[in-house]
Amino acid sequence: MRAVDIIQHKRDGHELSSEEIAFLVKGYVNGDIPDYQMSAWAMAVYFKGMTARETGDLTLEMAQSGDQVDLSPIAGIKVDKHSTGGVGDKTTIVLAPLVAAAGVPVAKMSGRGLGHTGGTLDKLESISGFSVELEAEQFFKQVNEVGTAVIGQSGNITPADKKLYGLRDVTATVDSIPLIASSVMSKKIAAGADAIVLDVKTGSGAFMKTLDDSIALAQAMVDIGSHVGRQTIAVISDMDQPLGLGIGNALEVKEAIEVLNGKGPEDLQEVCLILGSQMLVLGGKAKDEQEARKILKGHLEDGSAMEKLRQLVRSQNGDVSQIDHPDTLPTAKRTIEVKAVKAGYVAAIQAESIGIAAMLLGAGRETKDSIIDLAVGIRLSKKIGDPVQPGDTLAVLHVNLEDEIKLEEIKEKVLESYQISKNEVQIPPLIYALVTREGVQRF
Amino acid sequence: MRAVDIIQHKRDGHELSSEEIAFLVKGYVNGDIPDYQMSAWAMAVYFKGMTARETGDLTLEMAQSGDQVDLSPIAGIKVDKHSTGGVGDKTTIVLAPLVAAAGVPVAKMSGRGLGHTGGTLDKLESISGFSVELEAEQFFKQVNEVGTAVIGQSGNITPADKKLYGLRDVTATVDSIPLIASSVMSKKIAAGADAIVLDVKTGSGAFMKTLDDSIALAQAMVDIGSHVGRQTIAVISDMDQPLGLGIGNALEVKEAIEVLNGKGPEDLQEVCLILGSQMLVLGGKAKDEQEARKILKGHLEDGSAMEKLRQLVRSQNGDVSQIDHPDTLPTAKRTIEVKAVKAGYVAAIQAESIGIAAMLLGAGRETKDSIIDLAVGIRLSKKIGDPVQPGDTLAVLHVNLEDEIKLEEIKEKVLESYQISKNEVQIPPLIYALVTREGVQRF
Repeated sequence: MRAVDIIQHKRDGHELSSEEIAFLVKGYVNGDIPDYQMSAWAMAVYFKGMTARETGDLTLEMAQSGDQVDLSPIAGIKVDKHSTGGVGDKTTIVLAPLVAAAGVPVAKMSGRGLGHTGGTLDKLESISGFSVELEAEQFFKQVNEVGTAVIGQSGNITPADKKLYGLRDVTATVDSIPLIASSVMSKKIAAGADAIVLDVKTGSGAFMKTLDDSIALAQAMVDIGSHVGRQTIAVISDMDQPLGLGIGNALEVKEAIEVLNGKGPEDLQEVCLILGSQMLVLGGKAKDEQEARKILKGHLEDGSAMEKLRQLVRSQNGDVSQIDHPDTLPTAKRTIEVKAVKAGYVAAIQAESIGIAAMLLGAGRETKDSIIDLAVGIRLSKKIGDPVQPGDTLAVLHVNLEDEIKLEEIKEKVLESYQISKNEVQIPPLIYALVTREGVQRF
Repeated sequence: MRAVDIIQHKRDGHELSSEEIAFLVKGYVNGDIPDYQMSAWAMAVYFKGMTARETGDLTLEMAQSGDQVDLSPIAGIKVDKHSTGGVGDKTTIVLAPLVAAAGVPVAKMSGRGLGHTGGTLDKLESISGFSVELEAEQFFKQVNEVGTAVIGQSGNITPADKKLYGLRDVTATVDSIPLIASSVMSKKIAAGADAIVLDVKTGSGAFMKTLDDSIALAQAMVDIGSHVGRQTIAVISDMDQPLGLGIGNALEVKEAIEVLNGKGPEDLQEVCLILGSQMLVLGGKAKDEQEARKILKGHLEDGSAMEKLRQLVRSQNGDVSQIDHPDTLPTAKRTIEVKAVKAGYVAAIQAESIGIAAMLLGAGRETKDSIIDLAVGIRLSKKIGDPVQPGDTLAVLHVNLEDEIKLEEIKEKVLESYQISKNEVQIPPLIYALVTREGVQRF
């Protein structure tokens, strides 16, 4: 078998055999197949796609390319949740304790933020002392005892995906649905969950800008789940504006706490209930979404979800008093308001621009080595549909930065992120579709 | 400017600017742009093509990436000839002396053979003593005095093309018309000719299997010629069977001598007259093809073309007596006949298979480092259209090999290369089209 022939098969639109895919992935990881062949192959895949069978094979090969986590020491059906990445998405911080409170073990391995999207690990480190590095045994023990743990990925998980993703990033081959789907799913499969709930974002702030593309990606991932025997469902949720109001690490933790206390922005609460319900159903703790939603609402109202967060934080050496007094979480030195200059209704909020503005304030990483400021960020005062008058506050910047020129640019960026319409604007739906093995249910 | 953005532009079907193409080629040669980005870009070009302007820019950048030969010390209009590669193509050995005899200087830099196609330098080295390595000054002097010289490429000509071609070869990105066209033309332009006659082969034994593809390639190359101010015309000639009868180094030199003596296979003679006529017209020594053909025929008949070959060989230290007594050229130890097994008419001769069979006999190189045997090869006894009876000799192998098992395989390969039809077969045209700046003239 020769890599050049496999590239040519794909270039010519043929379906690759399982052996050809295994040859490529194994050869790439062990260095027999050089980057320049993989990038040409990835570009051929960009143009010619892959069948569900090929995508499934690629995913499994990548999942098996390194360590695979064995979650069997944890009792029960382990349900994982994954978001394709958005701005202001703090659902994991709500869902881990909330779903655990309902009896579904949540053994979560999360990542750090890069670019305009934040990372759960960074957010949780806003809580002083919170440690995201647990040994495997300790991790299993905590999930068995507390019901949940959130840690960073350790070990050599999916090296094939890491290598291929790095290559795709610099060769304009990221935007390929089968390659995105296999990248996400290979990590989830290697991380050992029995079932997976995917939150596929759609809209201007999402990786997938159109609903059709988002559904296609969701279907590809659900197909892979079927192919490898891990029950997978996908929720297509809105990212035409940031989720909730806070963007920035401590700001997002505060908002997650509000939701766990039965308050917080309605959109964030609703997305958490929808994703959480799917997790409960897959975890076998509710017969359908209606029942699951009722159970979850109960845990929000009776304080048990919040109590689960306390247990989670305590188990991972975090300062629980900060959870109970969120004003003691990292706070920026000053706030600056971004004010509307014209009257009308908020028609859109460019989530990506808001994410970049927050990053420029120090809340996110421009490069892997950037140091982030946990206290800073942006809190939106207006969202889509809200009426505004000149002088109204659109958003509040939480600032430690002293460079006034840079600050002016950031203010401008936030102001420009807001699109104001003269006419009244309908609030976009939160959820567009549910994708399961059985098909697509659009709302 | 970033390479990844340029790859994405091409991937998305945009025309690249001259600056973007210069950035890519310069960066690739100096090592700033890695192979894995160039191969992804080449695959994007495979799918999205390039405009005439882009192809012209790429060609010039590659031509200028290394040494450029200045032929100005040679008087007159220097006309180069290039073939896209075929089997049994010994036209250069005929044309260099023939066209020079007519007063057009032929300063030819040639290559060696690889795979199933032979190389002019190897063929000429069948003549004992013949040296293909001349210093530039000696080269110019010989062309000025004798009218022609045939040497190997020296110096650092088109390093960008060398590097990119090597990469394309292992990433399934060879079959792209703009990339093939720019590769050929960059070398011709760097080699300094004022005008270029291209012999684009078409058919089963050619790189381009269909007439449409061959014409498209010819047009791309003629466009480049216009773009850079080098008058270029292309002849589309048949490669549905080998050209002439001999395949193998000394066998081909013998056949070229036959043609220069006014004999030899009719197809070879005709292709040489057509290509030579174009060279004479571009070189300003004939007002049209009719006149040019008459001049060339005169040089074949009156012995002046043959005399020019003697001068060429003598100037490059070759043994002229071998030219006058071709039976003293390297000769194989034995001959083996490949005989027909069924009656009918020769319908096709797989030129590529014949080329590979000759290579396996030792006439060509399987890898760059293979050592070739100048004496061996194949001489065809039947060509398309010829009637055959069982037991008739189809071809004669000229053999030094002693491995009888391998020989049986080669015989089998040659036999299989012949397609025999029950019905009478028309001889295919030798020339399908002429492509000039003004358009395509099909015959």
